[in-house]
Amino acid sequence: MELEKSPLAPDAFPDLPEIKGVRFATVAAGVKYQGRTDLMLAEFAPGTAVAGVFTKSKTASAPVLKCQEYLPGGTARALAVNSGNANAFTGKRGEESVDHILSAVADAVGCKIEEVFTASTGVIGEPLPHDHISGQMPGLVEQLGTAGFEDAAAAIMTTDTYPKGATRTATIGNTTVTVNGIVKGSGMIAPDMATMLGYIFTDAAIPADVLQALLTPSADASFNAITVDSDTSTSDTVMLFATGQAGNAVPTGAHDPVLADFKRALDEVALDLAHQVVRDGEGATKFIAITVTGAEDDGAAKRIGLSIANSPLVKTAIAGEDANWGRIVMAVGKAGEAADRDKMSISVGGIRLADYGQRVDGYDETPVAEHMKSQEIDIAVDVGISDGCATVWTCDLTHGYITINADYRS
Amino acid sequence: MELEKSPLAPDAFPDLPEIKGVRFATVAAGVKYQGRTDLMLAEFAPGTAVAGVFTKSKTASAPVLKCQEYLPGGTARALAVNSGNANAFTGKRGEESVDHILSAVADAVGCKIEEVFTASTGVIGEPLPHDHISGQMPGLVEQLGTAGFEDAAAAIMTTDTYPKGATRTATIGNTTVTVNGIVKGSGMIAPDMATMLGYIFTDAAIPADVLQALLTPSADASFNAITVDSDTSTSDTVMLFATGQAGNAVPTGAHDPVLADFKRALDEVALDLAHQVVRDGEGATKFIAITVTGAEDDGAAKRIGLSIANSPLVKTAIAGEDANWGRIVMAVGKAGEAADRDKMSISVGGIRLADYGQRVDGYDETPVAEHMKSQEIDIAVDVGISDGCATVWTCDLTHGYITINADYRS
Repeated sequence: MELEKSPLAPDAFPDLPEIKGVRFATVAAGVKYQGRTDLMLAEFAPGTAVAGVFTKSKTASAPVLKCQEYLPGGTARALAVNSGNANAFTGKRGEESVDHILSAVADAVGCKIEEVFTASTGVIGEPLPHDHISGQMPGLVEQLGTAGFEDAAAAIMTTDTYPKGATRTATIGNTTVTVNGIVKGSGMIAPDMATMLGYIFTDAAIPADVLQALLTPSADASFNAITVDSDTSTSDTVMLFATGQAGNAVPTGAHDPVLADFKRALDEVALDLAHQVVRDGEGATKFIAITVTGAEDDGAAKRIGLSIANSPLVKTAIAGEDANWGRIVMAVGKAGEAADRDKMSISVGGIRLADYGQRVDGYDETPVAEHMKSQEIDIAVDVGISDGCATVWTCDLTHGYITINADYRS
Repeated sequence: MELEKSPLAPDAFPDLPEIKGVRFATVAAGVKYQGRTDLMLAEFAPGTAVAGVFTKSKTASAPVLKCQEYLPGGTARALAVNSGNANAFTGKRGEESVDHILSAVADAVGCKIEEVFTASTGVIGEPLPHDHISGQMPGLVEQLGTAGFEDAAAAIMTTDTYPKGATRTATIGNTTVTVNGIVKGSGMIAPDMATMLGYIFTDAAIPADVLQALLTPSADASFNAITVDSDTSTSDTVMLFATGQAGNAVPTGAHDPVLADFKRALDEVALDLAHQVVRDGEGATKFIAITVTGAEDDGAAKRIGLSIANSPLVKTAIAGEDANWGRIVMAVGKAGEAADRDKMSISVGGIRLADYGQRVDGYDETPVAEHMKSQEIDIAVDVGISDGCATVWTCDLTHGYITINADYRS
């Protein structure tokens, strides 16, 4: 099936500057797709530090398990990602495929196998034809530097309707550094075809343990605060590579004040990429931001937010441009977190619909109905308990989602 | 919108015998709907014992809170249920409406207010026009005995496409007793229009504390083991009334062996009713049974089963008649319960697709594809940890669900 570009897509792929110490090559390896690139190799300069966050799935794929094994080493020299086959639920054979690919990359790049990271995205349960991938490595190494970030983002797409990238600059001390990121994902996350893979690259010099301490909260507030359909992939991966080529003074720890601006840039890139995943959500026609305040703590606020964001009844109501706040109340209630019925308030598009546990007096639906027609929907809920707050993002649930996931056999 | 009868509906409402000590009356009170009954009054003989289980929602409706307050009294003389308005998220005004209705019922029936139970189902957030309901009580009491179980089941429907009832007989000692039940619900559970309300009636003589000890596990294995769309209503209620008119020897406790056959009958009625709710699921075209074995314990098995049953990707795949077991693996993984990837097996329609963590050798899709075309789909998953097991039931996710919930404004 040919998918049309999401109506919520940005106008164009942004202009991403080079990152010193990162080179890409891509190729059409024929893992499954025809007539498009499906394999990306990134090579990093010696001394590149790495951090990562991965799916919490109990059936995590073989590549995820291997990345988790190598991550404590803290250095990365290469990253190889294929689309078309997820190498998930492939048993011992899947582990052998990963080893096979990592050896080929290490040989071609000339590094230790523990410095190579990998991911696979696509169909689950099919044995990965790893020779298609490993056989490409000598040629890909020759081509390093010929592909840019947009090419890299395109090679790792599955059902994505557009390649996704983001960039920011920051200063660390007197040095300007760049943070670039690419991501793929279009359900949150269809296991066959829509795992979320995010890769962020910087020329900053930051040790691996500090990098990890920065990435975890950044991912929690971005990639882990979005949902398309409540489904979690076996392969979800976000990694951050720091080549150190900018030559900044090395920070002493994650709380070193010199990192404040870098954190801002990292958070912005992560959030930009996460939003682009939602904007490419299967069948999405509306981008929805849900802010919960007044919860017992920030974690409770996020769980209430995700309960609203994952509710099929809320998502279908928004698809129907219906400001059905009764469904929002229901979703707050099912989250299982404390909420004071008689203090709860709900606003849509900045307009208060309900207050003190009931509809506001003289409620006029007209301005709310106007807001519901736009592509960007804002929902705010205060649950009246304490000061926990969080924002999460999702899209609506439409006939398009059913069409993509039910009408066509994979 | 006019809803067509679900393709999964039973042929007809079953023949429910009378239960001595229970009398019904129904009326078109005009709460919201036109041209149909929307208010049901049940009167119980003095000495009727009562048990109940309710929604765990943190935004439970005013009628639910009042039922929970009166339940410890253990006796019931009347039950009044209206459809068309849920009296939920109506603040203090909602509590006043409940008090108003309960007083009117107590006066008309001639009983204590603490012996009256109530429920409301329909639109959330609209003030309940309680005078429409209380004003009917004197007339309804006059009419007691003129309505049967099918009339009672029809009066409490909202978006249900057919009235739902079930019956079994059992022996307690030498006495034959009857267990009849009615239920309404058609999403699990749309808050505006599709709260699940289940009422079970028996002529057995069973004390309230024993009744409660029987109802809780019975509801856990039936009403709490079904899902249509993962959404939980603010009003979900299941109650069990025992009039004692059959004159059996009163059991000494829930574990009294004399109750074995009654428990069987109660469990069967509860499960029959729960299945009928799934069969009337919004947009449903397939009835799906999911059995999980090999889990850490029965609770873990149920959580894994519900993770599969609630996955939009599994449900859309089944709607598309696609035996997409990769999506089942994904849903097992996201449940967060222990699963051994290398021991996991999956069967669909009794045919093993995957074993020892990978696709079976020489997998032939033909018989599985045949099974996927039927209306009753069976999925079995063994997660290879221990001996916990559970079965849950759901329906598929179709364009019909989107149409009902998005295309029409409520």
